[in-house]
Amino acid sequence: MTKTVFILNGPNLNLLGQRQPEIYGRETLADIETACAEVAADLGLATRFFQSNLEGEIVEQVHAARAEAAGIVINPAAYTHTSVAILDALKAFDGPVIEVHLSNVHKREAFRHHSYVSLRADGVIAGCGSQGYLLALQRLSALLS
Amino acid sequence: MTKTVFILNGPNLNLLGQRQPEIYGRETLADIETACAEVAADLGLATRFFQSNLEGEIVEQVHAARAEAAGIVINPAAYTHTSVAILDALKAFDGPVIEVHLSNVHKREAFRHHSYVSLRADGVIAGCGSQGYLLALQRLSALLS
Amino acid sequence: MTKTVFILNGPNLNLLGQRQPEIYGRETLADIETACAEVAADLGLATRFFQSNLEGEIVEQVHAARAEAAGIVINPAAYTHTSVAILDALKAFDGPVIEVHLSNVHKREAFRHHSYVSLRADGVIAGCGSQGYLLALQRLSALLS
Amino acid sequence: MTKTVFILNGPNLNLLGQRQPEIYGRETLADIETACAEVAADLGLATRFFQSNLEGEIVEQVHAARAEAAGIVINPAAYTHTSVAILDALKAFDGPVIEVHLSNVHKREAFRHHSYVSLRADGVIAGCGSQGYLLALQRLSALLS
Amino acid sequence: MTKTVFILNGPNLNLLGQRQPEIYGRETLADIETACAEVAADLGLATRFFQSNLEGEIVEQVHAARAEAAGIVINPAAYTHTSVAILDALKAFDGPVIEVHLSNVHKREAFRHHSYVSLRADGVIAGCGSQGYLLALQRLSALLS
Amino acid sequence: MTKTVFILNGPNLNLLGQRQPEIYGRETLADIETACAEVAADLGLATRFFQSNLEGEIVEQVHAARAEAAGIVINPAAYTHTSVAILDALKAFDGPVIEVHLSNVHKREAFRHHSYVSLRADGVIAGCGSQGYLLALQRLSALLS
Amino acid sequence: MTKTVFILNGPNLNLLGQRQPEIYGRETLADIETACAEVAADLGLATRFFQSNLEGEIVEQVHAARAEAAGIVINPAAYTHTSVAILDALKAFDGPVIEVHLSNVHKREAFRHHSYVSLRADGVIAGCGSQGYLLALQRLSALLS
Amino acid sequence: MTKTVFILNGPNLNLLGQRQPEIYGRETLADIETACAEVAADLGLATRFFQSNLEGEIVEQVHAARAEAAGIVINPAAYTHTSVAILDALKAFDGPVIEVHLSNVHKREAFRHHSYVSLRADGVIAGCGSQGYLLALQRLSALLS
Amino acid sequence: MTKTVFILNGPNLNLLGQRQPEIYGRETLADIETACAEVAADLGLATRFFQSNLEGEIVEQVHAARAEAAGIVINPAAYTHTSVAILDALKAFDGPVIEVHLSNVHKREAFRHHSYVSLRADGVIAGCGSQGYLLALQRLSALLS
Amino acid sequence: MTKTVFILNGPNLNLLGQRQPEIYGRETLADIETACAEVAADLGLATRFFQSNLEGEIVEQVHAARAEAAGIVINPAAYTHTSVAILDALKAFDGPVIEVHLSNVHKREAFRHHSYVSLRADGVIAGCGSQGYLLALQRLSALLS
Amino acid sequence: MTKTVFILNGPNLNLLGQRQPEIYGRETLADIETACAEVAADLGLATRFFQSNLEGEIVEQVHAARAEAAGIVINPAAYTHTSVAILDALKAFDGPVIEVHLSNVHKREAFRHHSYVSLRADGVIAGCGSQGYLLALQRLSALLS
Amino acid sequence: MTKTVFILNGPNLNLLGQRQPEIYGRETLADIETACAEVAADLGLATRFFQSNLEGEIVEQVHAARAEAAGIVINPAAYTHTSVAILDALKAFDGPVIEVHLSNVHKREAFRHHSYVSLRADGVIAGCGSQGYLLALQRLSALLS
Repeated sequence: MTKTVFILNGPNLNLLGQRQPEIYGRETLADIETACAEVAADLGLATRFFQSNLEGEIVEQVHAARAEAAGIVINPAAYTHTSVAILDALKAFDGPVIEVHLSNVHKREAFRHHSYVSLRADGVIAGCGSQGYLLALQRLSALLS
Repeated sequence: MTKTVFILNGPNLNLLGQRQPEIYGRETLADIETACAEVAADLGLATRFFQSNLEGEIVEQVHAARAEAAGIVINPAAYTHTSVAILDALKAFDGPVIEVHLSNVHKREAFRHHSYVSLRADGVIAGCGSQGYLLALQRLSALLS
Repeated sequence: MTKTVFILNGPNLNLLGQRQPEIYGRETLADIETACAEVAADLGLATRFFQSNLEGEIVEQVHAARAEAAGIVINPAAYTHTSVAILDALKAFDGPVIEVHLSNVHKREAFRHHSYVSLRADGVIAGCGSQGYLLALQRLSALLS
Repeated sequence: MTKTVFILNGPNLNLLGQRQPEIYGRETLADIETACAEVAADLGLATRFFQSNLEGEIVEQVHAARAEAAGIVINPAAYTHTSVAILDALKAFDGPVIEVHLSNVHKREAFRHHSYVSLRADGVIAGCGSQGYLLALQRLSALLS
Repeated sequence: MTKTVFILNGPNLNLLGQRQPEIYGRETLADIETACAEVAADLGLATRFFQSNLEGEIVEQVHAARAEAAGIVINPAAYTHTSVAILDALKAFDGPVIEVHLSNVHKREAFRHHSYVSLRADGVIAGCGSQGYLLALQRLSALLS
Repeated sequence: MTKTVFILNGPNLNLLGQRQPEIYGRETLADIETACAEVAADLGLATRFFQSNLEGEIVEQVHAARAEAAGIVINPAAYTHTSVAILDALKAFDGPVIEVHLSNVHKREAFRHHSYVSLRADGVIAGCGSQGYLLALQRLSALLS
Repeated sequence: MTKTVFILNGPNLNLLGQRQPEIYGRETLADIETACAEVAADLGLATRFFQSNLEGEIVEQVHAARAEAAGIVINPAAYTHTSVAILDALKAFDGPVIEVHLSNVHKREAFRHHSYVSLRADGVIAGCGSQGYLLALQRLSALLS
Repeated sequence: MTKTVFILNGPNLNLLGQRQPEIYGRETLADIETACAEVAADLGLATRFFQSNLEGEIVEQVHAARAEAAGIVINPAAYTHTSVAILDALKAFDGPVIEVHLSNVHKREAFRHHSYVSLRADGVIAGCGSQGYLLALQRLSALLS
Repeated sequence: MTKTVFILNGPNLNLLGQRQPEIYGRETLADIETACAEVAADLGLATRFFQSNLEGEIVEQVHAARAEAAGIVINPAAYTHTSVAILDALKAFDGPVIEVHLSNVHKREAFRHHSYVSLRADGVIAGCGSQGYLLALQRLSALLS
Repeated sequence: MTKTVFILNGPNLNLLGQRQPEIYGRETLADIETACAEVAADLGLATRFFQSNLEGEIVEQVHAARAEAAGIVINPAAYTHTSVAILDALKAFDGPVIEVHLSNVHKREAFRHHSYVSLRADGVIAGCGSQGYLLALQRLSALLS
Repeated sequence: MTKTVFILNGPNLNLLGQRQPEIYGRETLADIETACAEVAADLGLATRFFQSNLEGEIVEQVHAARAEAAGIVINPAAYTHTSVAILDALKAFDGPVIEVHLSNVHKREAFRHHSYVSLRADGVIAGCGSQGYLLALQRLSALLS
Repeated sequence: MTKTVFILNGPNLNLLGQRQPEIYGRETLADIETACAEVAADLGLATRFFQSNLEGEIVEQVHAARAEAAGIVINPAAYTHTSVAILDALKAFDGPVIEVHLSNVHKREAFRHHSYVSLRADGVIAGCGSQGYLLALQRLSALLS
């Protein structure tokens, strides 16, 4: 049976592509969703793509993943640095988790250097732009097979 | 008139009993709710039991408690360590507040050692498992009589 | 055309005027809204007033401001100190932002001395009570003209 | 056979009831001892009550507990924050340990926020006044049955 | 009788308008003095404007304010971050004190984030340019009436 | 009636005069006791002089002082830096307390710069050698008259 | 012309496959080299694979990369956390740099959470095992095309 | 020949007696000067009393003391915590130095716990009110004879 | 004349051999005493073996050593990390001091990494089990001959 | 036209040569001034030499340098470590600035390791004694030509 | 078969005996090598003695020890405090490891108090001079038999 | 006899002149070597110029300097901040040592503010570009004559 991977996105990521396109490019979150779906299909995986600006809704998606997903790709955005709640939710998920950041957070402000989610994630991919999602799917595929 | 106590539960506590039952036991949050109601009844108290994964909804339950509750038992879970908003809400509540943690947070990761809620709570009970809720109700009962 | 200013209010501010009126006064958030509207009108500005106890809803109001507002006055309350998400949202807003705090946060607990929002705000006004909103509107008016 | 619980009390607790009775109440340590004995009897437990101002004597009572006690309730008072020796003694005790503080230490000076004893205790009850001892006995009773 | 407000300015502010006018504008401290006098007059207040590069002279102006001023607007500039002496002087002044900074100090070097003066100030206005002085006068006027 | 002052001395002070007399002088603790008694007599005070190497015994002397002493001079020696128990005992003493150190502790190792006892002491005299005890008695005398 | 990618490996990585194969697997560094060469060939890239236990030799390989390589994949191993020299060498390299770690360093000892190399790397991939090298090559390929 | 002692006073001390007399008493700095002169005369010492709000003027008085004074009593007030310059000046003075603080600075804000002057002072007397000056003179007298 | 070495043991060491013998072995403190006496005899040294759970009693044994011992072996156990009093006592002892720890304290909790006693000890031997005492005696023997 | 270099000297430097000549040598600040003038003349530069013990006067000399000096040599002495005001003044000076310290401040007390002035200085020369001034003039000469 | 012990020495230890012989003695590293060989022979062990100033060469000797040595004595000298690479190499060695320091590093500069190697070493012997190597061999012998 | 000065250069300095010549200039390390030789000749000194990217090789050059050099100029580059080994080597060198940095390290990343080498260097010259080497030679010349 096709395994499903949840791809969870944190706050402000819904703005991708609209904000400063000369810097961040014109690629939207919908474009990333499409690219993920294609790559996942090639890997024999289904995807469910979700974005929320509410910490609690991301927690609840992780809960849903317990029953419905074989693995999780998560870009927690700002909640990376502040959410123990998402960390705790992920700790209750048994499958593999790959954390993705569009930018290399280690080159940015000091408060972005710490990730609560990394304390649970199996792998972390940062600074690879939207390609990071696709690399994460490859890693999940390897772990799930 | 019977006084009502609000029993507020933070993120991920809805998973109790489903997650690693060999470790956390098979007791669910509903079981705790039932046990609380029974103990409260013995103490002459009514209870309102609430769980949310959203910080803001817990804030709003505390607001509601201002009119409807004589005291609060709160297990803020992950928000213990990160939520100034819940702290500020509790500061606007005049009755007694008992903070409960299922595990002894002081034995866990360093970021779990600090509690914003403790800056307001009258009492703190940690590491007594679900019995902690019942002990908290006894303490509230003593403070309210 | 009349420019619109968003006036965003964080958690627990809905309790203003109800809580300890002998200390905080009997002025409610609705009173502040009215005063803001009057001052804004004098300055040739329209206002949209919003309060939420949910971090994510404030993030989304900032997103809405991208299309609808020329400037933002924000009193992030407790989220001042904990929300990278609101900071990131404000970074995606191009107009001027003035941060307001009713009390002088620098005289309070140490954890209230740091503001994520100040890392983006153009101006910060603290400890001027509800008049702080009106001063903020004057500053926005100067920046927008 | 009736199990015995040791109830150990640290420095200055012998002054309870004599010092500022308008604040701390007129309840003495002897009163607490009596109340503990009654509650313990109801729970089918015997108690041995001990107070010392000397760190080393508390260490030695914990040693004695290894042979004679099924569980320990300990209010280490000032030694909570400074005694590795008591921590190490408790680590050599196999039964359950509940740590009690009359006041909510987390609301007091920063040096009272850290407890060496909590690194070993199974449960921690703070800010419940002398009732904390009784709640601790209930918890011990549950753990011992 | 017309109340007088002291407007005290710290080191290097005498250079305003001469230094990098393309950045800081061509407005001099004398211009700010004039603008303050006009706004104060509208508010029914007199002003005394003072600048010094010597910490001790600012201390002494605060002493003078004890007898002669109803309130103080102070831009302590570099002494904001290093002068306990000015803080102590302000603590001996009974009227309202508003602290002003031309720039948003919270966006600058870390050593500019801490203000000794804020420990005494009633209000703090930062990042509003020279308009900050005028907003401060409005706040003082409200506090003095 | 003649008031009594307790003069309490912490660990290792019994070695005074025996250890490195070329450095610390040949004055023993008994010599200090005699000098204190003489000065106290001139001030109309009686003294009780006590030394212990056990933290708990010093705690108990402070307890005794509650009934028997009008004031306390204390040189806590090494316990200055580590004893919350002595601090808590002194907090239960209502009369004036003067803390004495033979050497200027602020010029020594960093761990000697912090004093728990100073959080309660009314006055602190350091680096005045054995004369510090006599100055402390003068201060106590002034406070007690 | 085929672009060359340098794949640089830090200290102790020569032990891969020999050490605790039940934990780290039986894959050797030579196996990784082979897998990298294959993936690189598919991407139209040549590879040069290098391992050294000497910080200075890695510095010199980065120097060599200035003339000979279009991009660098680097697993600095222990030097990640201690080598400013490698960081400075990488700063003198103009092409893209991807940092790889076999394990998720953020879950290990605190001293492994900081990476000097991340201050220069464009992307960072951690916790994806030897597949991390292959994902890094894909990212380099995207950046170089 | 009569030896002279300099008694140097830092910023804001000129306000003594005028500020909140119900708290600080009605004793002025002139009163302290008189009391010092009397006690010094009894000890066979002359005094020169000086107060300044300028750090540099205190530095220069210490320089003058090199030629004219046998010892120094200094109450550096706010400069205690911030002035390396006064510390360095005192290091160039060969005679004994006693540091005086009216209040027990160790019970006040954390930034008042550190004294640069203590790094040079022979003795430190804090929290003994104006009597501290007189005790300091006694200590100087003992050191000078 | 045969020189005597004091072998001092801190809190909880009296439990050796009784506690978790499968881990710590069945060797008791008496066994160590015997082994020490034998090795010392071979080295031409006499030993005096002492254990106490009271910090002050260890201080007093160090005082006794001043007259009676040529050197000290000390395993301060928990007081290693908290006792300035023992440090100060050892500073008054002129002979060589070797500090012993059964376990490698540097691999344990962070609060066990700092030793007050090491600030005075000539040598430190950790993690060599009970053999550490014997190695310490050899070192003392070399220093004393 | 001959360019002028300001040579500014901070507090206590007026004591050079008088204080401990066996250590610091018999060279006075006047000697340094003469040596600087000679070296500067050789380099085709004029000098203006200034010393003050008042932070504010040094600030004002830097202001004067804006119109009159092509470069600045500054030995801020104690103000190196505490003066944001001098830093801010130097930031308003456009020419080159060389910071000089007679001693190697990095080998002294920790509080001397940080320099506010270094945040603006182009070059820093420490531990080269009075020759440091002459080396600084050479560097300025190179930068100005 | 005779077991071999590697005795590894870090940077600058080749200078032993040449540098300040009046302080460090005239014993060279070759002397230590000879003494170790003799003691080892008595214990039935062979030794291989190695010194390098290059971190990577020490790493490689540890690698060699995996095949050739039963245990390691290591004096990492300066690399004690900075080398994660040596720590990681030692983690790949299965036999016992004893860390030796000639001096008591805990009495020296703060940066010498932390040892990466201690995180892996079984035992640590410091401040026992060259005898420390011999004691380490005894400990290894006990662990290997 | 002509004295020789060693001029030692740390990692990455071999790239000088090749890397970003528009920023760092076209001057190579060979150019600096030539300039140093010329200036040294004028001062009557011979030079030996050395660069290495290996920490251990720099250590060994310092060892060589013990026999062959009268003084050392060292630009430790990245090893400034991380090498205790070079510090220890320099401590075994008796002649004068001048530390040079091309840039003003105090204006760069925080980890560049600390220098292990400065704990031994007699003088430190930073931010004077390649001229810093020449100034260092002048200083050495003065110290050696």
